[in-house]
Amino acid sequence: MKLALIRSAYMSLRAHQVRPGSRFTGFSRRCLPIGITSSRLSLRAASATSSTGTNPKLTGNFGVQSQKGDESDYDNHVRKVVQSTREAIVTLQKRNPAIQPLLAILQAGEDDSMLEINKKMAVKIGLNITQICLVKECSEDDIVEELLKLNDDPKVHGIYLHLPPASITSRVLNTLKPEKDIEGISDLNMGRLIRGDLSKGFVPPLASAVLDLLENHDAPLEGKTVLLVGGEGPLQLAVQCLIERSGMVTLKSHWSSKSLQAQVMQADAVVLLDVGNMYVPPTWIRPGAAIIYCKPALEKDENAFGLSSKSGLESLTAAYRTQNVVRSCSRWLKGQEYRPWHLRSLKLQPLTPVPSDLAISRAQIPKPVDQLAEEIGLLPEELEAYGRSKAKVRLSVLERLQSQPNGKYILVAGITPTPLGEGKSTVTVGLVQALSAHLKLNSFACLRQPSQGPTFGVKGGAAGGGYAQVIPMEEFNLHLTGDIHAITAANNLVAAAIDARMLHEATQSDKALFNRLVPSVNGVRKFSPIQISRLQRLGIRKTDPASLTPEEINAFVRLDLDPSKITWQRVVDTNDRFLRKITIGQASSEKGQIRETGFDIAVASEIMAILALADSLGDMKNRLARMVVGTSRSGQPITAEDLGVSGALAVLMKDAIKPTLMQTLEVRPVHMTEAGFGADIGMEKFFNIKCRASGLRPSVVVLVATVRALKMHGGGPNVSAGAPLPREYTDENLSLVAGGCRSNLRKQIQIAHLFGVPVVVAVNVFKTDTQAEIDLVCQIAKECGASDALPCNHWAQGGRGCSELAQAVKEAASKPSDYQFLYNTEMSIVEKIRTIAQRVYGADDIELSPEAKTKTDYYHQQGYGSLPICMAKTHLSLSHMPDKKGAPTGFVLPIRDVRASIGAGFIYPLVGTMSTMPGLPTRPCFYDIDLDPVTEEITGLF
Amino acid sequence: MKLALIRSAYMSLRAHQVRPGSRFTGFSRRCLPIGITSSRLSLRAASATSSTGTNPKLTGNFGVQSQKGDESDYDNHVRKVVQSTREAIVTLQKRNPAIQPLLAILQAGEDDSMLEINKKMAVKIGLNITQICLVKECSEDDIVEELLKLNDDPKVHGIYLHLPPASITSRVLNTLKPEKDIEGISDLNMGRLIRGDLSKGFVPPLASAVLDLLENHDAPLEGKTVLLVGGEGPLQLAVQCLIERSGMVTLKSHWSSKSLQAQVMQADAVVLLDVGNMYVPPTWIRPGAAIIYCKPALEKDENAFGLSSKSGLESLTAAYRTQNVVRSCSRWLKGQEYRPWHLRSLKLQPLTPVPSDLAISRAQIPKPVDQLAEEIGLLPEELEAYGRSKAKVRLSVLERLQSQPNGKYILVAGITPTPLGEGKSTVTVGLVQALSAHLKLNSFACLRQPSQGPTFGVKGGAAGGGYAQVIPMEEFNLHLTGDIHAITAANNLVAAAIDARMLHEATQSDKALFNRLVPSVNGVRKFSPIQISRLQRLGIRKTDPASLTPEEINAFVRLDLDPSKITWQRVVDTNDRFLRKITIGQASSEKGQIRETGFDIAVASEIMAILALADSLGDMKNRLARMVVGTSRSGQPITAEDLGVSGALAVLMKDAIKPTLMQTLEVRPVHMTEAGFGADIGMEKFFNIKCRASGLRPSVVVLVATVRALKMHGGGPNVSAGAPLPREYTDENLSLVAGGCRSNLRKQIQIAHLFGVPVVVAVNVFKTDTQAEIDLVCQIAKECGASDALPCNHWAQGGRGCSELAQAVKEAASKPSDYQFLYNTEMSIVEKIRTIAQRVYGADDIELSPEAKTKTDYYHQQGYGSLPICMAKTHLSLSHMPDKKGAPTGFVLPIRDVRASIGAGFIYPLVGTMSTMPGLPTRPCFYDIDLDPVTEEITGLF
Repeated sequence: MKLALIRSAYMSLRAHQVRPGSRFTGFSRRCLPIGITSSRLSLRAASATSSTGTNPKLTGNFGVQSQKGDESDYDNHVRKVVQSTREAIVTLQKRNPAIQPLLAILQAGEDDSMLEINKKMAVKIGLNITQICLVKECSEDDIVEELLKLNDDPKVHGIYLHLPPASITSRVLNTLKPEKDIEGISDLNMGRLIRGDLSKGFVPPLASAVLDLLENHDAPLEGKTVLLVGGEGPLQLAVQCLIERSGMVTLKSHWSSKSLQAQVMQADAVVLLDVGNMYVPPTWIRPGAAIIYCKPALEKDENAFGLSSKSGLESLTAAYRTQNVVRSCSRWLKGQEYRPWHLRSLKLQPLTPVPSDLAISRAQIPKPVDQLAEEIGLLPEELEAYGRSKAKVRLSVLERLQSQPNGKYILVAGITPTPLGEGKSTVTVGLVQALSAHLKLNSFACLRQPSQGPTFGVKGGAAGGGYAQVIPMEEFNLHLTGDIHAITAANNLVAAAIDARMLHEATQSDKALFNRLVPSVNGVRKFSPIQISRLQRLGIRKTDPASLTPEEINAFVRLDLDPSKITWQRVVDTNDRFLRKITIGQASSEKGQIRETGFDIAVASEIMAILALADSLGDMKNRLARMVVGTSRSGQPITAEDLGVSGALAVLMKDAIKPTLMQTLEVRPVHMTEAGFGADIGMEKFFNIKCRASGLRPSVVVLVATVRALKMHGGGPNVSAGAPLPREYTDENLSLVAGGCRSNLRKQIQIAHLFGVPVVVAVNVFKTDTQAEIDLVCQIAKECGASDALPCNHWAQGGRGCSELAQAVKEAASKPSDYQFLYNTEMSIVEKIRTIAQRVYGADDIELSPEAKTKTDYYHQQGYGSLPICMAKTHLSLSHMPDKKGAPTGFVLPIRDVRASIGAGFIYPLVGTMSTMPGLPTRPCFYDIDLDPVTEEITGLF
Repeated sequence: MKLALIRSAYMSLRAHQVRPGSRFTGFSRRCLPIGITSSRLSLRAASATSSTGTNPKLTGNFGVQSQKGDESDYDNHVRKVVQSTREAIVTLQKRNPAIQPLLAILQAGEDDSMLEINKKMAVKIGLNITQICLVKECSEDDIVEELLKLNDDPKVHGIYLHLPPASITSRVLNTLKPEKDIEGISDLNMGRLIRGDLSKGFVPPLASAVLDLLENHDAPLEGKTVLLVGGEGPLQLAVQCLIERSGMVTLKSHWSSKSLQAQVMQADAVVLLDVGNMYVPPTWIRPGAAIIYCKPALEKDENAFGLSSKSGLESLTAAYRTQNVVRSCSRWLKGQEYRPWHLRSLKLQPLTPVPSDLAISRAQIPKPVDQLAEEIGLLPEELEAYGRSKAKVRLSVLERLQSQPNGKYILVAGITPTPLGEGKSTVTVGLVQALSAHLKLNSFACLRQPSQGPTFGVKGGAAGGGYAQVIPMEEFNLHLTGDIHAITAANNLVAAAIDARMLHEATQSDKALFNRLVPSVNGVRKFSPIQISRLQRLGIRKTDPASLTPEEINAFVRLDLDPSKITWQRVVDTNDRFLRKITIGQASSEKGQIRETGFDIAVASEIMAILALADSLGDMKNRLARMVVGTSRSGQPITAEDLGVSGALAVLMKDAIKPTLMQTLEVRPVHMTEAGFGADIGMEKFFNIKCRASGLRPSVVVLVATVRALKMHGGGPNVSAGAPLPREYTDENLSLVAGGCRSNLRKQIQIAHLFGVPVVVAVNVFKTDTQAEIDLVCQIAKECGASDALPCNHWAQGGRGCSELAQAVKEAASKPSDYQFLYNTEMSIVEKIRTIAQRVYGADDIELSPEAKTKTDYYHQQGYGSLPICMAKTHLSLSHMPDKKGAPTGFVLPIRDVRASIGAGFIYPLVGTMSTMPGLPTRPCFYDIDLDPVTEEITGLF
């Protein structure tokens, strides 16, 4: 047992050790008139005799505190509570060995004897104690401030306010967190008790003690009459309420009642509340009746009473107090544990025809995100709300749930799509709506955060669509929680650092550079930690700047970047094609250091890839430091850490790494992070790179197919954005469908099977599809080895529209899977590329350009040879030729160039030309996007 | 009175009109054995006689509902409650004529007679009613869902759950918002009642009715005995508690008690709870005693009772129910009103020496932002939290407080600073800490949001410093709430739109452009609203695309931007000097459309200026639409609206316009928006541009001066960042101080006086300043006309360190001010520039370059001549020459160029060269910035 002492700014400090209390033999019973003349004398007499224990009527009753020996009865009760509470702690510690129930005592003034009883009891039970000792004259503000700290401290399970009654104000009570109110005195807990709901609040320890005594009285009291004398406060009402609830009949009387004696004499038990200095003569008590004296929790005028505070009832009360602490601790622990969600579902009533995405999104009122978080078992301290409907989830949740077994991991991929997209996002959202709203399985959809480029360009947003959407879709499609803005800021800080460094190196001597990079601050020169890292990479094991040789200084200060070998590009989250290739540094202030470079769209930044792959803050920071931005003139890779910028990058990205929580139309949580890229190449990368990095193993692949795309693969005419669809796509055409199934769909299923993962085909139904077409797809898909194949109507019907798919996915996921990677990373870069090209794309072979060959050799030499491969290839064909549909064969895959994202941790071969900066069309989406300044409603987003 | 009917998805619809109920003459009294054999017969007899009114004992008692005539006594009670409640509504509507108390009834099944009584009563009182009718078999989820809607609806003031008792579950009760729980049945409200705190909860209407009857009984009952028979639920406890609190003595008994008759006969009043089918024979009642029958709120088996539900007690209960609705409405209205803050202050205990800014910030635990908001009187629905310590405030607060008088408006400006800065932000923060924490005046500090450029560059953050800081400073100095990222995104979308449009115009025919800009969607061609606006600006009053002539089509589709006259720059929030001048469009895909342009730092965007000046969403949207991005080859200004992008810009900026709320070290709120620029030019712009736009009039100028800067103006040596300070600045030198005071300080005071605003000089004390130096500054400042001049030590001591300054500011602000603008906007552009140059800067005259002259003429011709002037001049001198310190005279101000920000609404003359893109030094701040991945603590920010 630890006794922690916490000193507030206003505490009068003294030692608070547990010391043996003097033993007292009874309650204080100072005799004062109680309004009944006839009883005055007997009161005095009783007072005199009670401490000698001569009154046989009192013997055997619970109320007998007059003799030491009589306490044994209390002792039995106390022993039982102590024992059961200790057992409860053992049980808790079996569930979580690190748990230690902690009682916080907030007191004004020094310890009194009552506090000592409580502390001794806590020691006996095995609780930790924290005492916050304010001065006696402390203000309400002081108490509230300390209370707030105790409320927020997850280690504190119960708060015992040992304060003068006058200090326990409404504000203090309202501040006290009901979950830690082990006294049961907050309004909410009192209300719960009165209503009879004991699942959340706490029974006041004194009330528990009284009830214990009554319920375990020698003569059973059920149906018998218990007389309550005195008391009007909430505690007294609680006692009455509990007594009645346990089957006894209560009668109330008052110290001033004329019929007090008669009532006492008739009662089977008497509970004397607010005893103060009142007393009931033993002669009034019926033989065998129970009598219990209760005093207010904190004596106002302790010393005036002389013998006080130590009694059996107080020990029993203290024991129940510790029991409440342990109960609170147990509830807290339970709240920390994983559990099936208690999600309140919003019902969807899909309309026909299906309204616009924005209209559907707006028609559903999103659940407040803090409520959503609570329902899915996140703790309040794990959530950072961003407005009403978005939140960041802190990474501490990973630690809390680390001992939980993994769930099923389902990848939604697609067949090779048309340029219009085949609905992978909507299937993902629809599926999670079906899995959790209809199959009642805890499940998350993980979607990519949309880039503003396409949102304002051609494609529109990425929140899903129809009745399978993330809501509010305008929040999802705009700034969201600023992660992509953070990537932009971090990426461009690296870029600015590169060019500024080249300028400074070009215009300064080694000495000037060294003096500026390692300046003398108050006469002291020191390397920063990031500079020590660079020195170590250079093989210089020195920490004193003065000890460096001129050669070492030269090596240290000059990154000596080769301008023609800088691979780092700037980024914007805008479709700005004019930034694809630019010349920078043309202002006279840059002294002629011009060079050609370009901007990518922000999500093409290596930092985006790092965000998708990092599994902790530390991992992210290391990856950011390792990012290679270019090569020195002597051929050495130069990293973000060499530029001194990696700490700042981690700072800029510290919130972006936290996943964002939103919800779907049917109030399923959506936890957004990078998962799944485009079609077949997406699945391959997901399996070989992301699953390798995360260690997670996929259970099922859901392969999204559309009749439209299958017809295209079966030989249908060209499909392009903006142009009306040819007739083949709106009329039934079974032979085109069959052709597409037997080529592209079959091949995509085979690819998934290469990894040993079962496939469920989801046919995303369009209204022009015929039943025969859909049936044909499902039939051939199963012939090709799919575990199952089902049509789904989530777009028009929400989760209900793909509940059969959800069932099939559930079944497939329950089968044992035999997951394996496609290649061993220890293979050479070329061999890995060849493996992917031949086994996944169906190529005969690969052909590397001279540049690609040189780079490959360089990466092997630099030790990057064992990184996995991230192919940069068109998603519109299994081959490198976008117009080759179906399942092309007999081609050689040309590798134009090979690049490396060392921070993210992969090599990326470029196959053909791939633009990393989209452009705007003549009439971009933004033409229709508008804001009503009065209603604040957005129009035109899709 | 309006009767609104709201239909939930699960409602069984029927007409819910108020219909006259049948009149019943008594409570249902079905006779059933009650366990006392002897009383059975008399009960039956009573049942038979009670409806004939033959028992004289009952006459005159409150319990007599057996005769129509006997209801008159109830009627009096009801009349009083009705009258006082009506009066309360009148009072409310005097405070807010639009207010209308609204009672929401959530019911399962159709109206019953009890509901009819309540509806009639609500009509009588003048409440609005909303009825939500669920089917009888509704689920808990259905009830919760409707409840959540009612909770959130600000128009609903009270919720009456007319549901079967079994439906009022813990979950339902916990969902019900306590503020609207007019039944007083939620746990929290029940606890409040039990504890005796009636300031927030509600007394259950039935309990009020019972108490009313007892308190107003013919024979006063104070000190008398009230017998409560039956009942164990919370409602009964509430009744008991209230009766005792009003000074009566309660005794409890039970229907099954053997002594029931004796107890009833002795009681001065009898309250029969849970009556059901029980009955007390009139013969038991003492003459003159009161008897009250209460029934549960909702009869489970209504029809079985026959005569039921209509009674005096029920009417009285219904009247008290409406009273609670009106009370709730009144509380809500009060919560909406402005009030002095009840801020709980965190105490500051400054350490010596002063720790780092980050260490100080981290040592104070920020108050949760939702709690801060509540304490300063913001409503929960006006707040959008961003994590724990930041929030956006919705603009609806402006509407709510529009009838409030304006507060005092204080501008913190400075003398001409050294390149190191003289502490304007710290004074602002220190002053607000002093004003509110020490002088107890509601006050906000308005600071600029920091740019990430300087944060990672040279200057560091902008949260203040020492013990005068905004906390958490790392949140303030990083992404904050993403406003600057939003500006970057919006600015660059305009830029991408400009270049893409030029490319499309260069490569397409008029017809192709028109077909793409006004596409046929499902065979229909329509202009979008933004295109109609452009047509109108072109003078084409047509709305049918088919009706345009080829000339009109040409005019419409071709913006015909002159590449050499594009004034719009791209922006990044990074100090990236290599982007100052660049060439774009060099990729082959851009077909040779290359041009020179550049990037500015994000906060230099015109959109930033618009954000600072817009006073509503509508105003912002209009300003964004008006932004001129360049000129057509025919000399016409081309706007963001012409590009079709202005709606999208408003969407991107919709959250940025909401002010951000944070707090200072002493827990004063900080509401960040643009206010105050650099030194003398800042003040002039603030007065002439910002005050003109906002209509707000400044009360006081606080002019920040440092001994260091004054010495520089008095002739001290050069001060530059990075180099050690010369001895003159660390040793006492009164003559340099006097020189600076009599030149720059005097001139800055005079400038403020030009506007008729009193000046208080704040001497920001550094530890090297001597007392004599400080005294000298204060003395001369007062000689020069300052209202007061005081040293301040907020950096080392927090608010306490500038409480004297706060007092002086308070006094100066209480004097009448005589504010006037420096110039009339109707003056010509040149005259306005000359006025500023001569009267503010002290120039002899101005000299315009030929380019500036041409531009000036062009702006006059375009109708921009009456815009105010925003001078772009160095802040390091009153003149255009940064090295001319003090108060230079005898110079002519050269105007190199004149530009226009039409959206923001000002003309900006360029005086000399001003960089709008800072650079990074050799060792930028980012070298020291790091993140501990375990503790998540940031180091190195300042």
